[in-house]
Amino acid sequence: MSETPSQVQPEMHPTRWGDPGRATPLPDAAAQLVELAFGPAAPRPTLDGAPLPPSGLGSEALDALRSVLGDDAVLVGDDVRRLRTRGKSTPDLLRARAGDLADAPDAVVRPADHDAVAAVLSWAVEHHVGVVPFGGGTSVTGGLAARRDGFAGLVSLDLGAMRRLLAVDPVSMTATLEPGLRGPEVEALLAAHGLTLGHYPQSFEHASIGGFAATRSSGQSSAGYGRFDAMVVALRVATPRGEWRLGRAPASAAGPDLRQLVLGSEGAFGVVTEVTVRVRPRPAAARYEGWRWPSFTAGADAMRRLAQSGVLPTVLRLSDESETALNLARPDAIGSGGSVGSGGCLMITGFEGDDAAVVARRDAVADVLAGLGGEPLGEEPGQSWRAGRFDAPYLRDSMLDAGVLVETLETAAFWSGRERLYDTVRTALTDALGEGALVLCHVSHVYETGCSLYFTVAAPAGDDALERWQVAKAAATDAMVAAGGTITHHHAVGTDHRPWLADEIGDLGVSVLRAVKADLDPTGVLNPGVLVP
Amino acid sequence: MSETPSQVQPEMHPTRWGDPGRATPLPDAAAQLVELAFGPAAPRPTLDGAPLPPSGLGSEALDALRSVLGDDAVLVGDDVRRLRTRGKSTPDLLRARAGDLADAPDAVVRPADHDAVAAVLSWAVEHHVGVVPFGGGTSVTGGLAARRDGFAGLVSLDLGAMRRLLAVDPVSMTATLEPGLRGPEVEALLAAHGLTLGHYPQSFEHASIGGFAATRSSGQSSAGYGRFDAMVVALRVATPRGEWRLGRAPASAAGPDLRQLVLGSEGAFGVVTEVTVRVRPRPAAARYEGWRWPSFTAGADAMRRLAQSGVLPTVLRLSDESETALNLARPDAIGSGGSVGSGGCLMITGFEGDDAAVVARRDAVADVLAGLGGEPLGEEPGQSWRAGRFDAPYLRDSMLDAGVLVETLETAAFWSGRERLYDTVRTALTDALGEGALVLCHVSHVYETGCSLYFTVAAPAGDDALERWQVAKAAATDAMVAAGGTITHHHAVGTDHRPWLADEIGDLGVSVLRAVKADLDPTGVLNPGVLVP
Repeated sequence: MSETPSQVQPEMHPTRWGDPGRATPLPDAAAQLVELAFGPAAPRPTLDGAPLPPSGLGSEALDALRSVLGDDAVLVGDDVRRLRTRGKSTPDLLRARAGDLADAPDAVVRPADHDAVAAVLSWAVEHHVGVVPFGGGTSVTGGLAARRDGFAGLVSLDLGAMRRLLAVDPVSMTATLEPGLRGPEVEALLAAHGLTLGHYPQSFEHASIGGFAATRSSGQSSAGYGRFDAMVVALRVATPRGEWRLGRAPASAAGPDLRQLVLGSEGAFGVVTEVTVRVRPRPAAARYEGWRWPSFTAGADAMRRLAQSGVLPTVLRLSDESETALNLARPDAIGSGGSVGSGGCLMITGFEGDDAAVVARRDAVADVLAGLGGEPLGEEPGQSWRAGRFDAPYLRDSMLDAGVLVETLETAAFWSGRERLYDTVRTALTDALGEGALVLCHVSHVYETGCSLYFTVAAPAGDDALERWQVAKAAATDAMVAAGGTITHHHAVGTDHRPWLADEIGDLGVSVLRAVKADLDPTGVLNPGVLVP
Repeated sequence: MSETPSQVQPEMHPTRWGDPGRATPLPDAAAQLVELAFGPAAPRPTLDGAPLPPSGLGSEALDALRSVLGDDAVLVGDDVRRLRTRGKSTPDLLRARAGDLADAPDAVVRPADHDAVAAVLSWAVEHHVGVVPFGGGTSVTGGLAARRDGFAGLVSLDLGAMRRLLAVDPVSMTATLEPGLRGPEVEALLAAHGLTLGHYPQSFEHASIGGFAATRSSGQSSAGYGRFDAMVVALRVATPRGEWRLGRAPASAAGPDLRQLVLGSEGAFGVVTEVTVRVRPRPAAARYEGWRWPSFTAGADAMRRLAQSGVLPTVLRLSDESETALNLARPDAIGSGGSVGSGGCLMITGFEGDDAAVVARRDAVADVLAGLGGEPLGEEPGQSWRAGRFDAPYLRDSMLDAGVLVETLETAAFWSGRERLYDTVRTALTDALGEGALVLCHVSHVYETGCSLYFTVAAPAGDDALERWQVAKAAATDAMVAAGGTITHHHAVGTDHRPWLADEIGDLGVSVLRAVKADLDPTGVLNPGVLVP
């Protein structure tokens, strides 16, 4: 079988997030809050039409590639190169807004299938051209800012032409997907079979299957559906040394689980060309609710109890006091407090499944939460969060337009280290960003043994927003290391986290990654400088 | 903290399993069945006191090691070397019974802690001595039969002196364990904290934490507690290139999950010196039951429905028609049919937890099973299975004594491939072992997307049992590969499965393992010839 999406997702400009048609000015409430917090708006100009550096790849090399892939699959126009320039971190946006498109690829290559990807890699090795796999372009860690020096050029390996549902196994409950499929496309294709993947990161509307695999993505529904790495049962990978297939059973003891070496390899070891994932029946019912907790600690402890009792909602998140007060969950009502009122911390619980399961799990969770002192707020806060769950990046653009720097970062720790990690990172960000900066946090994912912490900051952008953020980001990452947490829970290493990778996995871990890369990619053409220090 | 077990597990002789005090002659019913199936008993002599090859390590090298570790930690006596010779596969037993102890280590080294392990590795590199990590000595895949040629000698790195519970984190619900701890020791130490690990492979009474990690072990309660690789949250490893620590959070996106590269590395990349595992509250209640299914397919389909609905018992296994008829689950009643009566397939369901959870899960599972046509057999078959769950290896010894070859092997596949895998492997074993051989099977582990198949064979040993089994094992493994299954679900690669590893993970996978080994163990002293082809 081979099914493809009926609709194509809009492409994203390097200066902002998402569908240009959905960009909106700052809501009034938010604008008022911005003025209250940061003074009069200082709108920042955006250079949308900044010139690109000329393509550095010679026509001989490009013609050689065209002869293999066809003319339509090798693009060098400024428009298409512009749309493949960097990812969607705030530094990426700030650079693009300032007219800096120095990381634009020299060409964009659109292979149609695994064999075409393999041909691109052979060509890249022969011509010593760096290859940057491009899925949805949503990296927030510099995963699309490969090192250029030492190479004859850099091409963006755009996987957007590889968007087929290749197989559905309704007995094993698996589906085989091509890497260029975006989140909504996957759900639409699976829905026709009565199935769902259930992977909903905030980048869902644009991010791709290949990106989910390459970055060990985690979604807003991971409490119920698991992280993406837990969904993957088999992989097909194109490497400079040939095809690599992994995954003959759900689990095996035939040596280390090498699927877990490909997951999170960020295009540095190979290009994922097929991903076989575990799927589930499409949920018939959904119920989202809000709960108020007297403190972040009380709410986090309740989450821990849920995770350790095995009674988990599909969605579970908890905002700290600051994030609750700002009510970031509702961009249309930022700062209003909404139904949560003042004080405390907002928890969102979401349940999806068949009707009976939703009721049963909702009741079991509500019993636990009520018993621990949670105050039920009914369905309105939950529905409100659900309605806006993918909108925050649009809000960030509006804030940047209004002269406010907004960025996020995340970490995770074991439960006993949660409070120290929270305090340490929060203090680092507050100290680095100075007076007037807002530092907000929520628990975005829970496990039996620990949880993630997802921070959002807002501060006046000023004239040196990029530099100031880089200082704050470094301070926050140092703090994560010092407090025993991980440097990233679900956003990958890219180039931004690379300086701290040895703190995370040790010098030996870095050495092992280098050895694996040298083995699979001897000339180092795959996403040079990304992941591997 | 540092807590150690109050009792020491008995050591195992190379010719048989377990505690010599628990060895029993073949039960009458089994003896009758053996005669019926295979003709008059042909007892096999066992050379228990066969001489060992002399230790090949010179006194200079040993003295150098003694000066670092102390005299008590470096042992060269025949008795201790004999007890560290090979593992517990039937070929291992047959060789030892025939007086072949050629794989005996030249010395046994017993480090007291991580630093001592590191010192052994430095010494081994300096003197070019192979190091075979030894936990419980329960390998059934030749994991303790390292290659000797090219080395100045082989030492058994006995982790039996590293048996401390190093830390309990009751908030995060984790415990940090040293690798030499055996299954019952772990449970006893954790019980004092009201906790359990919940890992019960058939080798539970002798196998070690380090071995569970090194082989990606899976237990009889893995439906409820998960595979061992899913329990591990952090690792400390001694390598020839130094210490390696992994695991700063339950989950991370900081590149590939390198914990999963250590798990299953079978001592070829490093020696695991600490394992931090997720623990759970000690269960207050347990209920085990039996169900009858009209066919293996009907029972397996019911298991699939349970796994895919998320309503799983703690223990779930299903015997095929042959295994049910033989009633291997009850060695005291083999062949009697027991309460199962004749025909059909026996499923065991076990539930552990607090009282309410056991009742609730038991009722939910029973509803599903009854709805799918299962016939409830009450608690007796479940309790009977539970009572004998660790006894099969003792029975194997008795059968070997009586001249009957008994061995097991296992595989796994996605659900849609289960039937083909079953038929293909079963046919391969039956054809290879010839007329009169018994080939039995059960589903030992289930996942949402697939399950394992665990085969047991019995056949007259004859004079060439070792060679005949090797032919049958090769045919069965070829069949697993041909049918799309994994070459081992929970018994690791060792040396026995190594010829098929490239079929499992591809030539590139083997190349990557070699690259990782070359990086961490440049002179190749760690378990030479095990895992990495």
